[in-house]
Amino acid sequence: MTYSICVIGGTGAEGSGLALRWAKHGHRVTIGSRDGAKAQAGADELNGILGRDALRGLESAEGVAAADIAVLTVPFAAQRSTVEGLKEVLAGKILIDVTVPLAPPKVSRVQLPPSDSCVVAIQDMLGESVRVVSAFQNVSAHKLKHLDYEIDCDVLVTSDDKDARQIAIGLAADAGLRGVDAGPLANSVVAESLTSALIWINRIYKVPDAGIRITGLPVAG
Amino acid sequence: MTYSICVIGGTGAEGSGLALRWAKHGHRVTIGSRDGAKAQAGADELNGILGRDALRGLESAEGVAAADIAVLTVPFAAQRSTVEGLKEVLAGKILIDVTVPLAPPKVSRVQLPPSDSCVVAIQDMLGESVRVVSAFQNVSAHKLKHLDYEIDCDVLVTSDDKDARQIAIGLAADAGLRGVDAGPLANSVVAESLTSALIWINRIYKVPDAGIRITGLPVAG
Repeated sequence: MTYSICVIGGTGAEGSGLALRWAKHGHRVTIGSRDGAKAQAGADELNGILGRDALRGLESAEGVAAADIAVLTVPFAAQRSTVEGLKEVLAGKILIDVTVPLAPPKVSRVQLPPSDSCVVAIQDMLGESVRVVSAFQNVSAHKLKHLDYEIDCDVLVTSDDKDARQIAIGLAADAGLRGVDAGPLANSVVAESLTSALIWINRIYKVPDAGIRITGLPVAG
Repeated sequence: MTYSICVIGGTGAEGSGLALRWAKHGHRVTIGSRDGAKAQAGADELNGILGRDALRGLESAEGVAAADIAVLTVPFAAQRSTVEGLKEVLAGKILIDVTVPLAPPKVSRVQLPPSDSCVVAIQDMLGESVRVVSAFQNVSAHKLKHLDYEIDCDVLVTSDDKDARQIAIGLAADAGLRGVDAGPLANSVVAESLTSALIWINRIYKVPDAGIRITGLPVAG
């Protein structure tokens, strides 16, 4: 199954890596940004890596309106205002939120927002018309851009909608990653807090990209 | 280095498994319980598995008073009252807290306490005289009792005291597990929330003991 996907904030490191991998797999991908010209420049760069004219850039509202699935990859500070501005065009769609609630400068210390999970707060704001999924918080952004790189990290996928979880698990696979069904959206706290611990581990152990694997599953990671 | 360790709640599944593995390694281990006779019965059972008279059972306050390190393995509902009752004897010692803030009946759903991390709340209550460490929340209890079983799960170790973190990482190794320095005590949220996600994963994937591994470290797990 192929989807039309708009990656909001897709000019950033995490978003562009996911967009690139999904476009390579055959999904119809747009880069969304507040600035349409910047979005198109980001898409052009990714098309250059792919060697074909697969992606295009759009102002986010336009990109989301034309997509089946929106993927949110903006900094935590911009998460809520970005979603508020897209609320109408998101109605009826799936929103995969990649946001990690980092609180600079202490990004290696878990500092959860009042709602515990920042994605749960987005689902509450959007209401039931949008099926919100949390995923991809723990994947090293710079590795995504190397298409032949095997990323040794699972993707914890949470949502209150079972079908949306399955679609996101499929999209993880299409990006070369193993998605794991980790339960209701409230369990997104695990992925949202884990990134700070991984940043700590990177520093302490002097490694570039610590990740996680779920062990004990029937299918190897 | 060998330590004198009192495992509070050591008659339970998680505590008895850790006590058994540490006693086998050569640490001096006592089983602590509110009921001294029950503690001794638990110790006798473990001595039977070990085939030698290594552990003894004591009322918790007595066991902690005689120990270098206390390890708390009681249900979340009993965590705070247990620590309050032991506050005086804990002074000057290391407390390794294994508590997972599960809120029955929905144990596969993350439901953090108001303090986010239940262990942070214990450190705040005890003050600086006790070095609190969080560890061992994600290790399958029933596997610990099988001494020859290689457990495919890392132990996330957090504390605001670096030396205490290192000691707990050493104790993980002595129990046959890899401990990973995951940062300040606030990062205990990761391990405390992860257990609910693992319970969910066990149910959905029909596996007995999902766990986690940190990837990308210089030393293999």
